[in-house]
Amino acid sequence: MGKKRVMVPVQEVDMSAVKYQQEDFQAPHLTGFVFKLFVWIIETPLIGPLIVSFVKKQNKFDELLQNTDIPEAPMFRPEFPPQEPEPGVVMLDEEGKPEERVELALKSLPQYDPASCWNGDSSSSFRYWKIRDYAYAYRSGRATPTTVAGHIISVIKEFSSKKPAQPLLISFDAEEVRKQAAASTRRFEEGSPLSILDGIFVAIKDDIDCYPHPSKGATTWMHEVRSVRKDAVCVSRLRSCGVIFVGKANMHELGMGTTGNNPNYGTTRNPHAPERYTGGSSSGPAAIVASGICSAALGTDGGGSVRIPSSLCGVVGLKTTYGRTDMGGSLGRSGTVEIIGPIASTVEDVMLVYSAILGSSLADRISLKPGPPCVPNISCDNSNTLGPMRLGKYTDWFNDVYSTDIFEKCDDALNLLSKTHGCEMVEIVVPELEEMRNAHLVSIGSEAQCSLNPDCEDGKGSRLTYDTRTSMALFRSFSAANYVAAQCLRRRIMYYHMEIFKKVDVIVTPTTGMTALPKERRTLTSPTGRPLRCGPSRGILVF
Amino acid sequence: MGKKRVMVPVQEVDMSAVKYQQEDFQAPHLTGFVFKLFVWIIETPLIGPLIVSFVKKQNKFDELLQNTDIPEAPMFRPEFPPQEPEPGVVMLDEEGKPEERVELALKSLPQYDPASCWNGDSSSSFRYWKIRDYAYAYRSGRATPTTVAGHIISVIKEFSSKKPAQPLLISFDAEEVRKQAAASTRRFEEGSPLSILDGIFVAIKDDIDCYPHPSKGATTWMHEVRSVRKDAVCVSRLRSCGVIFVGKANMHELGMGTTGNNPNYGTTRNPHAPERYTGGSSSGPAAIVASGICSAALGTDGGGSVRIPSSLCGVVGLKTTYGRTDMGGSLGRSGTVEIIGPIASTVEDVMLVYSAILGSSLADRISLKPGPPCVPNISCDNSNTLGPMRLGKYTDWFNDVYSTDIFEKCDDALNLLSKTHGCEMVEIVVPELEEMRNAHLVSIGSEAQCSLNPDCEDGKGSRLTYDTRTSMALFRSFSAANYVAAQCLRRRIMYYHMEIFKKVDVIVTPTTGMTALPKERRTLTSPTGRPLRCGPSRGILVF
Repeated sequence: MGKKRVMVPVQEVDMSAVKYQQEDFQAPHLTGFVFKLFVWIIETPLIGPLIVSFVKKQNKFDELLQNTDIPEAPMFRPEFPPQEPEPGVVMLDEEGKPEERVELALKSLPQYDPASCWNGDSSSSFRYWKIRDYAYAYRSGRATPTTVAGHIISVIKEFSSKKPAQPLLISFDAEEVRKQAAASTRRFEEGSPLSILDGIFVAIKDDIDCYPHPSKGATTWMHEVRSVRKDAVCVSRLRSCGVIFVGKANMHELGMGTTGNNPNYGTTRNPHAPERYTGGSSSGPAAIVASGICSAALGTDGGGSVRIPSSLCGVVGLKTTYGRTDMGGSLGRSGTVEIIGPIASTVEDVMLVYSAILGSSLADRISLKPGPPCVPNISCDNSNTLGPMRLGKYTDWFNDVYSTDIFEKCDDALNLLSKTHGCEMVEIVVPELEEMRNAHLVSIGSEAQCSLNPDCEDGKGSRLTYDTRTSMALFRSFSAANYVAAQCLRRRIMYYHMEIFKKVDVIVTPTTGMTALPKERRTLTSPTGRPLRCGPSRGILVF
Repeated sequence: MGKKRVMVPVQEVDMSAVKYQQEDFQAPHLTGFVFKLFVWIIETPLIGPLIVSFVKKQNKFDELLQNTDIPEAPMFRPEFPPQEPEPGVVMLDEEGKPEERVELALKSLPQYDPASCWNGDSSSSFRYWKIRDYAYAYRSGRATPTTVAGHIISVIKEFSSKKPAQPLLISFDAEEVRKQAAASTRRFEEGSPLSILDGIFVAIKDDIDCYPHPSKGATTWMHEVRSVRKDAVCVSRLRSCGVIFVGKANMHELGMGTTGNNPNYGTTRNPHAPERYTGGSSSGPAAIVASGICSAALGTDGGGSVRIPSSLCGVVGLKTTYGRTDMGGSLGRSGTVEIIGPIASTVEDVMLVYSAILGSSLADRISLKPGPPCVPNISCDNSNTLGPMRLGKYTDWFNDVYSTDIFEKCDDALNLLSKTHGCEMVEIVVPELEEMRNAHLVSIGSEAQCSLNPDCEDGKGSRLTYDTRTSMALFRSFSAANYVAAQCLRRRIMYYHMEIFKKVDVIVTPTTGMTALPKERRTLTSPTGRPLRCGPSRGILVF
């Protein structure tokens, strides 16, 4: 009795009275045999659900999603009214050819200066070859895709032969890479490259189809039940631009974790600190870019899976607007939060890859109509573009991180943006972060569970890692009514964000609340599979 | 092992090879003490879920929603691409004033002939007074809303005093009715009625707000936790047309059943056969119209709740397109199948009331955009309007009813339509009816459960009827992944219907597979609360 909690209608919430509340997630930290025993118990009928139920109660799950009267109707996917076109952008045609979009995006970039790459002693220090560096090299005859392929193949093989295994790629076929590179080289010889992306080496996360590779989602069995007969839509768009695919990049199994830990194939290491995790779930894509092997990679992101590893590996990742990319040919096609997004070493390269892959699916267009896609026009003076930007900062949340280092570094970047580029800082609040985290977990978990149920019922569940099995025991416990309640919360959360975006153009926050964890400290095996204080709450990212 | 079932992508299904399968629903038929014991057991932790799980397994629930690999992405609400405007219709403006829409709809009707009502010996046999009969009487001074109110009040009181109670209305206030009638009478005296609906008596189902009445959803407690401060959107539209509300009509508790059985307030009886049920859940609205007391009523329909009682009481009910009516101010605001729809004694009257209440909610318009609303223009010769109609009949399904009487009567109507009006009959198939029924049950049940959870957790659950508690035990057993799978099935089902509607304009079917059940035969207490062979499968109705 007296359990019911009643929310006021979202329009009546006084946002100025919202108080920040630190996340207080409680879950056992287990490793080794005890962890395996725990998984065995929570998978046991009757007793398992009781334990999961206890953990959920401790974390106020029932309070938020079972006992709360939410006055809003459910919103099942992120919906928002049509937006005004932004100033200072170049519009792209999602119906058009990818190579034409890339060409338009290219024109929106500052003039390329070969001297920035090609002068000076290039051997003295590491630097990333950007897409336009490769493009210049191929066009000026300084390199061919074939010669680059040779280097890349040998580096990838070197990574793969490390003990213990820490592969960047789960599926790799040197011959296939050579073939693609030879075709690209021929196009350059014939003076007819397909686009600025021709001959650019890109890795594809293992949950996105890239023919002829299998898509395993880093499991040991997914390829046995699901064959790949063609490229995913996004991959085929890159292929028509001349991209060379190096193979299928490593990941956290089925994307159900944010470390990149992978007992099936070995865990990709952070190129900047090999004793540390890359973050995940797009561990391989972020690491292969951060290590300089590929100019770009495609990841998937439903709860930080592009953003987290990009941040922890020091590269740039983009979670696109939901529905902006076509999920056809990916394992995440049933989701309401997941997108396919690019990772690259620079914002410019992310823009080029994004321009190629974007375009909503026909099925999505019935109900979801994000405005026409665009990229910022930064071809002239940067400060002009950034000048009028209003950056929204929720300081209590911004500073709620494990180490002061994190927010200090992020503050440095903000200072640069405001002092040098004239951006305006605006203090904001993002209400109901705890509700958001729970609603997100229920949404992404239930949707994954739905895709996996038929195979798990068919005996494949026991061939998943203990990490994944823990997450799935939690996901199985979500009721259909919980799922609907989560969607009611989504309507509130979308409302708050629409309100915030009336006042600011961007919400700024550290991507994660922690730096990359050492691999040895396996403190990450909480029943959610999420590292604490890191993840979906960091929704809109600058750093 | 070997449990997995893989569906082929919906576009690849050969519809011509689809075989009809009779529904074979298995559930215990229980009454009295045994039924109460059964409810007590299925509400017991651990053992209850096991029993529910057993019943679901018997009915292939798991096979359809747990073990099936459905290639489609979920579709959470009924989405369809924009439709071409139909020929021979009058367009209505959903942004406009209800009374102006009603005026337009009125012009689309055949000329009104007072002689049809007012000549001859009107006392000799019962006939329904249609909206235009009242309108004519008020305008010609033959009656006033006040005099009519007097009659209606006395009849309603008579119904209410019957033993056992079988009230048409759950909430009724004679004074409130007299007040509204007096105001309407004044408007006629002043020569300024608000619309053709001024002075028309309408009943509102108890799950739609109609101020100052409480909305109990036919429970004993809903009004204690949810107060009514204003009219529901649809009701306020009728009020601005001058409608007089007689009160809140009886219903199956929370709409969770299709008989109209109501132990809380007494069960409304079928006016054509008082020993029989009306059908439900909009039992009161259908009965009050069928008994000639009100010209119209508003019901809600998520799985047949307007259509079934309308059919079994011999009146006309309309399940509008989802999203066409605004659910604001109704208990079903969180649903993805439920609508508010009119019931009246004739198609013409349904058209008039529909014209007043229609208009989607702003929240729905972000993603759902049904084409502009319209009504058929039947102001001239009927045969012209119906002539080019193609009627789709799925004969195996059409004939799959309890008594040959049913399909024979329906066939008579079809013959009339084809022979007299020149409609074309087209044989169709509707694939995956069993999947549709299960997906529907999971959707409507989970959404209801979500709304009710906070109050049930707060102790109100035990104050529901045994019927409702049985349904809720089933609904609680649905997992979030089941819910998502149901939405994947929805995408397939919507696809099939889009394909069918390329070939036909209307799908014809008996509304129910049985005639109205005698109240004594309480064989209806299956765990779904649905009478067998009747319900949501009959989606698109003519009879």
